[in-house]
Amino acid sequence: MIASPISQENIVVGEVANGLPLTIPVYRLKGDGTGPSVYIQANMHGAEVQGNAVIFQLLEQLKHLNLKGDITLVPYANPIGCNQKSGEFTLGRFDPITGTNWNRMYHYNTDLVTQFAQNHMQYDDAILKSAFKQALIDEVDSKLNGPAYLLNTGKRIALNLQKLAHQADIVLDLHTGPISSKHLYCPTYATNSARYFNIEHVLLISSDFDGAMDEANFCPWWHLSEALSKQGRELSIPVEAFTVELGSQEKIDLSEALNDANSILSYLNYKAVFVNAPHTPANITRYACHLNDYFAYYAPMGGMVEYIAPLGGHIKAGEPIAKILRMERYLSEQPLQTLSLESDAIAILHFASASVNQGTELYKFFTNVFEL
Amino acid sequence: MIASPISQENIVVGEVANGLPLTIPVYRLKGDGTGPSVYIQANMHGAEVQGNAVIFQLLEQLKHLNLKGDITLVPYANPIGCNQKSGEFTLGRFDPITGTNWNRMYHYNTDLVTQFAQNHMQYDDAILKSAFKQALIDEVDSKLNGPAYLLNTGKRIALNLQKLAHQADIVLDLHTGPISSKHLYCPTYATNSARYFNIEHVLLISSDFDGAMDEANFCPWWHLSEALSKQGRELSIPVEAFTVELGSQEKIDLSEALNDANSILSYLNYKAVFVNAPHTPANITRYACHLNDYFAYYAPMGGMVEYIAPLGGHIKAGEPIAKILRMERYLSEQPLQTLSLESDAIAILHFASASVNQGTELYKFFTNVFEL
Amino acid sequence: MIASPISQENIVVGEVANGLPLTIPVYRLKGDGTGPSVYIQANMHGAEVQGNAVIFQLLEQLKHLNLKGDITLVPYANPIGCNQKSGEFTLGRFDPITGTNWNRMYHYNTDLVTQFAQNHMQYDDAILKSAFKQALIDEVDSKLNGPAYLLNTGKRIALNLQKLAHQADIVLDLHTGPISSKHLYCPTYATNSARYFNIEHVLLISSDFDGAMDEANFCPWWHLSEALSKQGRELSIPVEAFTVELGSQEKIDLSEALNDANSILSYLNYKAVFVNAPHTPANITRYACHLNDYFAYYAPMGGMVEYIAPLGGHIKAGEPIAKILRMERYLSEQPLQTLSLESDAIAILHFASASVNQGTELYKFFTNVFEL
Amino acid sequence: MIASPISQENIVVGEVANGLPLTIPVYRLKGDGTGPSVYIQANMHGAEVQGNAVIFQLLEQLKHLNLKGDITLVPYANPIGCNQKSGEFTLGRFDPITGTNWNRMYHYNTDLVTQFAQNHMQYDDAILKSAFKQALIDEVDSKLNGPAYLLNTGKRIALNLQKLAHQADIVLDLHTGPISSKHLYCPTYATNSARYFNIEHVLLISSDFDGAMDEANFCPWWHLSEALSKQGRELSIPVEAFTVELGSQEKIDLSEALNDANSILSYLNYKAVFVNAPHTPANITRYACHLNDYFAYYAPMGGMVEYIAPLGGHIKAGEPIAKILRMERYLSEQPLQTLSLESDAIAILHFASASVNQGTELYKFFTNVFEL
Repeated sequence: MIASPISQENIVVGEVANGLPLTIPVYRLKGDGTGPSVYIQANMHGAEVQGNAVIFQLLEQLKHLNLKGDITLVPYANPIGCNQKSGEFTLGRFDPITGTNWNRMYHYNTDLVTQFAQNHMQYDDAILKSAFKQALIDEVDSKLNGPAYLLNTGKRIALNLQKLAHQADIVLDLHTGPISSKHLYCPTYATNSARYFNIEHVLLISSDFDGAMDEANFCPWWHLSEALSKQGRELSIPVEAFTVELGSQEKIDLSEALNDANSILSYLNYKAVFVNAPHTPANITRYACHLNDYFAYYAPMGGMVEYIAPLGGHIKAGEPIAKILRMERYLSEQPLQTLSLESDAIAILHFASASVNQGTELYKFFTNVFEL
Repeated sequence: MIASPISQENIVVGEVANGLPLTIPVYRLKGDGTGPSVYIQANMHGAEVQGNAVIFQLLEQLKHLNLKGDITLVPYANPIGCNQKSGEFTLGRFDPITGTNWNRMYHYNTDLVTQFAQNHMQYDDAILKSAFKQALIDEVDSKLNGPAYLLNTGKRIALNLQKLAHQADIVLDLHTGPISSKHLYCPTYATNSARYFNIEHVLLISSDFDGAMDEANFCPWWHLSEALSKQGRELSIPVEAFTVELGSQEKIDLSEALNDANSILSYLNYKAVFVNAPHTPANITRYACHLNDYFAYYAPMGGMVEYIAPLGGHIKAGEPIAKILRMERYLSEQPLQTLSLESDAIAILHFASASVNQGTELYKFFTNVFEL
Repeated sequence: MIASPISQENIVVGEVANGLPLTIPVYRLKGDGTGPSVYIQANMHGAEVQGNAVIFQLLEQLKHLNLKGDITLVPYANPIGCNQKSGEFTLGRFDPITGTNWNRMYHYNTDLVTQFAQNHMQYDDAILKSAFKQALIDEVDSKLNGPAYLLNTGKRIALNLQKLAHQADIVLDLHTGPISSKHLYCPTYATNSARYFNIEHVLLISSDFDGAMDEANFCPWWHLSEALSKQGRELSIPVEAFTVELGSQEKIDLSEALNDANSILSYLNYKAVFVNAPHTPANITRYACHLNDYFAYYAPMGGMVEYIAPLGGHIKAGEPIAKILRMERYLSEQPLQTLSLESDAIAILHFASASVNQGTELYKFFTNVFEL
Repeated sequence: MIASPISQENIVVGEVANGLPLTIPVYRLKGDGTGPSVYIQANMHGAEVQGNAVIFQLLEQLKHLNLKGDITLVPYANPIGCNQKSGEFTLGRFDPITGTNWNRMYHYNTDLVTQFAQNHMQYDDAILKSAFKQALIDEVDSKLNGPAYLLNTGKRIALNLQKLAHQADIVLDLHTGPISSKHLYCPTYATNSARYFNIEHVLLISSDFDGAMDEANFCPWWHLSEALSKQGRELSIPVEAFTVELGSQEKIDLSEALNDANSILSYLNYKAVFVNAPHTPANITRYACHLNDYFAYYAPMGGMVEYIAPLGGHIKAGEPIAKILRMERYLSEQPLQTLSLESDAIAILHFASASVNQGTELYKFFTNVFEL
């Protein structure tokens, strides 16, 4: 028996040069209206395909669950990035024309929060929340319904997705790193929720808006809560949004996708999205660091890299993290250079290629780590 | 007789994967020390090659002039961008790995200005200026001399160039648009100087820092002047920096380069860089607009574009600016769409390709234009 | 009054990574069956968009003409190439994954000709031609209907187009050069037909098959004619196929497209495709050379190029064709090098970028030219 | 004690747009002249970096060996391919301008063999071989010393390398696949030599020339031997050339490189390159197939791929080799498709990305396999 029927809609988010429309499939399941609604998207960056497999595994399970809240799932969120090849690989981290990161084009009008906080003090929490949600949706709609010549390609895709996301109480944006361990971008106010994902590494982020999907959803609410707090009113932030980093790009692993689907179901179950679902978090140690302590290590020289620090590994200062082979000056220099860190860290991800220029981002590390 | 001998130095700004160094040629002419010093670079964006030809034409003339100030000229400023091909064209507007615009990686530490303004009030203008210039250079040096693993590829190139630029009183960064008319980015405080370039279109910009070379040079001084002004002291801004847009990318035109060299010599002569030079500005009407009024018109649909609005042309509202051919639906729609503007404008540049997605930046226009 | 109604069909030629189908629009006009049938396609190479405008101008006129033969027109022939951007430009000359030129993937089974010539000697010309045409179509069909895992991406697109083309007696493949004058690739047996296009430069090609659309259509017939000739039977080749080079890539020019449409209509009128059409060729001098004399001039050094030889211009040996600016060694070498040819030639096309490596194809020239 | 001193030379193989030379490091060790000479190169394709690590491990051992024959080692054979990034990955399989595979540009003049066989019948084997070796070198030299405007970029690089290779009796070109098991391209006449490499999979190739480095070295000798054989004279082919496929691209693994160095030393020891070296082949089963049986399996549909067939694995007909996830039509189709083969095979390599168009080369398989 299928508890929850699934429906599909294709939304048009653009048009390419030969006039063919760019469409995105949107899958929806209806809840009974008593729980929070959920929005999950994947593959905003072209090479980060594993999220599609997670959505597959989610759908395979969700259709057997009883839902309290509505769930919307969007694979292939970026039909340009998804299909932009350069050589064998998918070149979909940024718009190939402008270089703009596809996940930095979401919209946020800070004035909206300021004005709203001023004008809606008299309403109770329920009405306030409902009105603010509608205001966010209207703001996006006004952009989408404005003159077409005001919107660039990525903004139009982002706004279409953001409109769907604003309708939800929970937003999950599924990404991957280049070669990466799993990690979670979590706004600090939602730290407790991070304990319900089966993800060992948690990056705690502040309320700064930098254009990403998660920020576009939690920043307005966070800032509204702060604005009201200054006026002496405490509003619990009713929206949670996370960027879920599933591992490495350019890879589909269906059984790992099932694990990640279960991790997400555990979190959603904690948030009371389901009626009687069995999903609970795994008993693992979770390590966190603040975004300011998320350390990018750039290649100090050009060369060919053997990556040594294992992803997820706890690295001691002075231990080797990589070797750089430089065959141009085999006779005149030490051709094999060993790199290390000056302080302890957890290796989270590394560059996808073994061939680096001086200054290429080689590794990213959690530093000043603490247990969650 | 050659009045001013030219010297060459090659500076190393990075290293590629096979270990070969990335070098940039730096040409220098010495002045007698009585005039302002000048820094001119070209080709930071790979496809924007015409600046190299302008530097050629400048050198050919400068060697016959008597100089008051030192002049430093740097062609091929970005050896990665310059040599990054994708198909026939040079793909050098952004780092091919990260998507970051090469001209958004210059450095500016706003704290430096604040601290400096507090700590150097007691000095007279000459000492203050000299100390601040040195502080800017030291700031860049401290980055360049810090751990190599803290600098990404573009930042290292940018810092090396910026170090040269900070030593000058006048900074010119030679760029081009895609398909473009000539225009000049000019900080508002230097508006009068714009009258000495033979460039009809002037874009007036504020003191916001967005990572570009011109901003990296004028913003600190501008902000210092503002900080001192708040303390009741008026300091004339001793540095001018401009981005000079020479026309279209992917094009070398030596006679047009001579015209642009003469335009630059006219400005430098006005700034008293030469002894008895004959260069004066052309008698042309100059049109200006503020950066906020520099209007990007995005393709309202995907298709094949015939560009109609002539570059530099004064376009009336409602006049056709482009036609978009859409052969996918020849029978079911009007296959040829005509685009127009809602207000008067000057067409400054347009996209380089005839093939556009919905949302591609089609044209940029000056609006709310005034004569300078 | 519209004499000839136009119908549209969309054919599916592939599928991209997010599962969306790749479709190509096919426009058809029916003739009265008394004249030769015609197939015209455009934009097989992504950046070569002007052919779409020519098809637009053809359709606008064809609908007012009375047709003897059926006409099939296919714009946007390559939906992958058409939409593959890299920076501002369309990177569509080759498959971005494999590097294979999209116009070198057509199919030709030489065994088919040999076998056919042996097995069909007994038939008269009309039956022979009809059977051979069907055999070519069947050959393509057998590939298209074979296991999907045997066909690569480009081959599948090519076969779908080739199937349409084999049904016609006249095949025109509309291309452009990088920066180019108009020229025509013409099989030597059809030299007389070249006099009916308004194209000044004609490249005469032999019966070698190299994978291109025109060759895929005329080679089998040409080889069949040769095979029969060895057996003492003369068969006039009933199919003509040309690659029409319309000028420069990345450009839409609707009025020039009308000129090219008229040029094609003139040729089709000569071939008796129309009832009472007025189109006749322009009175121009046509210059030809053999493919062996089509001379590629590679950049003898790296540098920045000013192209001097005008396209279509008759260049004398020793005259400058280009200047190469080399600013890396301004002091130690002659920074401006002038290039010239060792024999007379007509400049047909040049490279699209001003920035070249040593060995980049700089120009292509007709040599050993003769009037047609 | 270092038995064999190493010398380094840098050869210039081209020049990029900013005028900087393209150089390749060449390392040489001298033998005592009693054994065959050896040429080994790596990294002709930009992303195939592991060969550089193998050359490193070879040099580390060779300097302790006593050599009978001279050895020349060339890492970073292609300074353009090596440094051509597109996104994180190295886009170096083909010239980014033309699409031409860098390993299809070597030179072979078949006329040379024909003429040589006719003109040198009177000489004994030693003189014949020496003269033919010189003729091959002279042929390459005449191209390199001809007018610079006749050579394209890749040809110039290839000729410079080929000139070095022609001087050797043994030529090894180190490559990798995308994601790949180790395999060896071996000319059928040298099948016995394949038993001395520690490589389980051997691809036997015929004497057809297709532009690759190995072919450019063995084809002339093979064809000469055949031509002489027709004249009744048997000449043993004195040159062996192999393409050694080391595994996957974009990866440096120094300990695996040591294994591969030992594999090569085992072969060279068998060929009597060393005095008293201990290197012998591993006791493994070697599987071979003919190039005609090397089967490319193209994606029968677009989608996201989970690769299942293990590399080096012996796959039975009907067993799953990959799953293709298609989330666009989750509701209307089976979203997860399982692919299989129609006959038994060994999986040798698969595509590097999980995201494929219909027709992307998914896997390559050995079929009709036999033990060597």
